[in-house]
Amino acid sequence: MSTSEIDASVQAELNRLRESIDNIDAAVVHMLAERFKATQQVGRLKADHQLPPADPARETRQITRLRQLAQSANLDPAFAEKLLNFIIAEVIRHHERIAEEAGNGNADGNGNGSATAAEA
Amino acid sequence: MSTSEIDASVQAELNRLRESIDNIDAAVVHMLAERFKATQQVGRLKADHQLPPADPARETRQITRLRQLAQSANLDPAFAEKLLNFIIAEVIRHHERIAEEAGNGNADGNGNGSATAAEA
Repeated sequence: MSTSEIDASVQAELNRLRESIDNIDAAVVHMLAERFKATQQVGRLKADHQLPPADPARETRQITRLRQLAQSANLDPAFAEKLLNFIIAEVIRHHERIAEEAGNGNADGNGNGSATAAEA
Repeated sequence: MSTSEIDASVQAELNRLRESIDNIDAAVVHMLAERFKATQQVGRLKADHQLPPADPARETRQITRLRQLAQSANLDPAFAEKLLNFIIAEVIRHHERIAEEAGNGNADGNGNGSATAAEA
């Protein structure tokens, strides 16, 4: 095999791997878009029925479960927990934006003011 | 509908949404496990063929593409960029761990020492 043939096969393999990475990234972005739709429905449901926005017991279960899933997928459990916290921060930003768009951030008296503690 | 019937239907809807959130989280964790397998293969391929670990042009294309994907999925493009940076930080941690496990972190002279600039 000449040097240029090696280069071409290495480049082809690199392209193959990068295409997989790009496909996975697109899938993750769309999964998270779907996830935010679900958390927004949760937020609305809780506001409509005067349920407390945060549920610490649920959050503890989520963290435990994600750490176990990470372990079985050969991922660092601490990474899974950080990922959940990263996503929760975005959920809170969404809730804050919705509250802002609804007026002064506490228009319906149903706890938009405590959106920073919303379930994620 | 009595109060308890309303409660039961609200609880059922909340459970339905939480199950979707849990399913999505499991999918994302497994997608990311697959992604880390791909980036590790990229790292090995580059090390084996003396290719530079980082590729800034590739990274710029990834960011541009993810921002566009986010926009079409009705997600904040800044969130997609932050997500990519979050994942890249973990890829770098993986590379550092591999380098550490390989000895003093620069055993093969093929750039493990510059793993902190590896493609993600």
